[in-house]
Amino acid sequence: MLNVAVMGYGVVGSGVCEVIRTNRKSLSEKLGDQVKVKYVLDIKEVAPDDPEASQIIRDFDILLNDPEISVVAEVMGGATFAYDYTKKLLMAGKHVVTSNKELVATKGTELLQIAKEKNVNYLFEASVGGGIPIIRPLYSCLAANEINRITGILNGTTNYILTKMFREGSDFETALREAQEKGYAERNPSADVDGIDACRKIAILASLVFGKEVDCAKVKTVGITNITSSDVAYAEKMNSVIKLIGQAELKNQTVYVSVEPRIIPKGTPLASIDDVFNGIMVNGNAIGEVVFYGPGAGKLPTASAVVADIIDCLRNDHNREYFWTQAASDFVADSADNFGKYLLVTKCADEVAQKLNITDRVFVTDGEWGLVTDVITERELDTVSAYIEKYIKLC
Amino acid sequence: MLNVAVMGYGVVGSGVCEVIRTNRKSLSEKLGDQVKVKYVLDIKEVAPDDPEASQIIRDFDILLNDPEISVVAEVMGGATFAYDYTKKLLMAGKHVVTSNKELVATKGTELLQIAKEKNVNYLFEASVGGGIPIIRPLYSCLAANEINRITGILNGTTNYILTKMFREGSDFETALREAQEKGYAERNPSADVDGIDACRKIAILASLVFGKEVDCAKVKTVGITNITSSDVAYAEKMNSVIKLIGQAELKNQTVYVSVEPRIIPKGTPLASIDDVFNGIMVNGNAIGEVVFYGPGAGKLPTASAVVADIIDCLRNDHNREYFWTQAASDFVADSADNFGKYLLVTKCADEVAQKLNITDRVFVTDGEWGLVTDVITERELDTVSAYIEKYIKLC
Repeated sequence: MLNVAVMGYGVVGSGVCEVIRTNRKSLSEKLGDQVKVKYVLDIKEVAPDDPEASQIIRDFDILLNDPEISVVAEVMGGATFAYDYTKKLLMAGKHVVTSNKELVATKGTELLQIAKEKNVNYLFEASVGGGIPIIRPLYSCLAANEINRITGILNGTTNYILTKMFREGSDFETALREAQEKGYAERNPSADVDGIDACRKIAILASLVFGKEVDCAKVKTVGITNITSSDVAYAEKMNSVIKLIGQAELKNQTVYVSVEPRIIPKGTPLASIDDVFNGIMVNGNAIGEVVFYGPGAGKLPTASAVVADIIDCLRNDHNREYFWTQAASDFVADSADNFGKYLLVTKCADEVAQKLNITDRVFVTDGEWGLVTDVITERELDTVSAYIEKYIKLC
Repeated sequence: MLNVAVMGYGVVGSGVCEVIRTNRKSLSEKLGDQVKVKYVLDIKEVAPDDPEASQIIRDFDILLNDPEISVVAEVMGGATFAYDYTKKLLMAGKHVVTSNKELVATKGTELLQIAKEKNVNYLFEASVGGGIPIIRPLYSCLAANEINRITGILNGTTNYILTKMFREGSDFETALREAQEKGYAERNPSADVDGIDACRKIAILASLVFGKEVDCAKVKTVGITNITSSDVAYAEKMNSVIKLIGQAELKNQTVYVSVEPRIIPKGTPLASIDDVFNGIMVNGNAIGEVVFYGPGAGKLPTASAVVADIIDCLRNDHNREYFWTQAASDFVADSADNFGKYLLVTKCADEVAQKLNITDRVFVTDGEWGLVTDVITERELDTVSAYIEKYIKLC
């Protein structure tokens, strides 16, 4: 019997138990032994007919001190108790797998170091892209590559809202309300719509791929709350859509990272990723471009990734060497040095064109111009801030 | 020094050497030691200034008997010498990684068995989807799932030809000629355009995922040589495209496998995969649907997958348990039992509608009807063969 424990019996935790229950037979075949959820740690009351009712415990020390437990799934969320428990478990020589992007993004460096020292694993496939395989492919399948850029639609809630705005002409507030009604957005939607969730995810991907910690606090993060119907109209004039894009790019040992709404031409791979789906595009020096697409959240897809990590630990006991170190303070570029092409909306086209190289004038309505710049830095963009109503970065 | 050997110095073999050379520094960092191509086995003459000129050997026994060589990349192709060499290497306790889909599809069962007994690996990430990570994600990241269906655009040549036919209205012959001029199709294009290559790939994926050998000889395989401009027009009337699709679906312990041109509605994930790109959609009971998209062939992308397998063997010496067994003779369904919806082109709409349940009449021109059936088996389809000009399966 392979005994595992689950910490947190919320949406993902109950999904983990469900996947292990439902696929009991095929998991046994894969592992040569039965997997059992021996403990579920949660302080909530659980209905007596809940399938895991007899597994519920409230005392963390029970699972910490049980030598039969070698793998624990931390699906509690948050960075306080989850941090404390994860650290203790790793120190005790147990593998921890998690969907907790906040904890991985803020404490991953330290936790991975402990896991390495103890020759156990701290795995986090479920922390980015929900069920989409991305962490392991980045580490294993694309290992032959020097990866220079990752670009992703990393948050399903905002993608749902933007899809609505484009498909149905909804404004942001209406689309958000609908996302909340369908359970795709929280009552307090800030972590999603302000880009915080996407920021944690791109920070995790960039840290893993570039081997050095990318601190969320240094990532320029703009959400979608200021996207208006007229922005939708601008994008449509450019035969494009707007997506909230997390991107990390390595150039001369410096990483340029951002989360912001960007204009993406229709017909390119990320433009067609709609609704709550996520898509992640990876550029490597041998592979060229690959895209991973699928459900970026949801109970069973996320549980699928958590259970895959559990299986990985059960199949093979050694440390997987997922690892990144502290970075020098200039590893993440100052956001003023971020660069790209921008759509500028302005009533002062001539003044802007005197200061910046404009490659295209995509529309003019009532004296309001849509200008597309050459590749410029945000510092250069700032020089015209007095003349422009709005800017949106191109992708 | 980590010494490896490459068998076959063609497109992929030279790509493998190039990736190892180009990314020497990052590979050393990942592996903690330098990787060196100690031998390249080929009978061809190599220019004296070729970067691997001093590594070329012609005698297989040199690498077989060199204890410094623990990993060999077999990128020769074919199933005669490659089979003999691979078997000897595995028996000698060396890992073999390969891009050779013909060999994996025809001899994989035996070679994986030997690898297991010798506790070494026979890895074949590059055999399907070129550089796209698919084998390892199926085995590791989606391990928590019971996978019930795999659907893929698995051949870049045919996808390029079909894309041309749709985008530019070319006929098959013209599009093929252009593919040959660009180096996307062989002088003898049969393996691609007749679906043989795609058949090998879906057989490999199905064998891996369902754990039992899917014999190519049992897979209904139809190429694209009979696709005409009028088929393109039919698909366009249905707001769809035609793609050569390999599909394997498990139902009641039986696998239904086919390679054939199919009509796919625009706006669905596989419909937008154009040119030489490949895309593979996997359906699992927890994940729902995920799609992997990228370059399905080409020197460096394929080499990227081969080198990833080399790295995997160097990182960790044990058998990866990729495995499938011989299957009972009825594991692959008789193709007459394959099922789906079909577009039928017929001048006898009434006769057809008397025999089959027709859900839609999508067009009529000059007395020629396009009828869409309900889900039927090929056996049922056969009952109207006298009345129909043509059929194309829907996806």
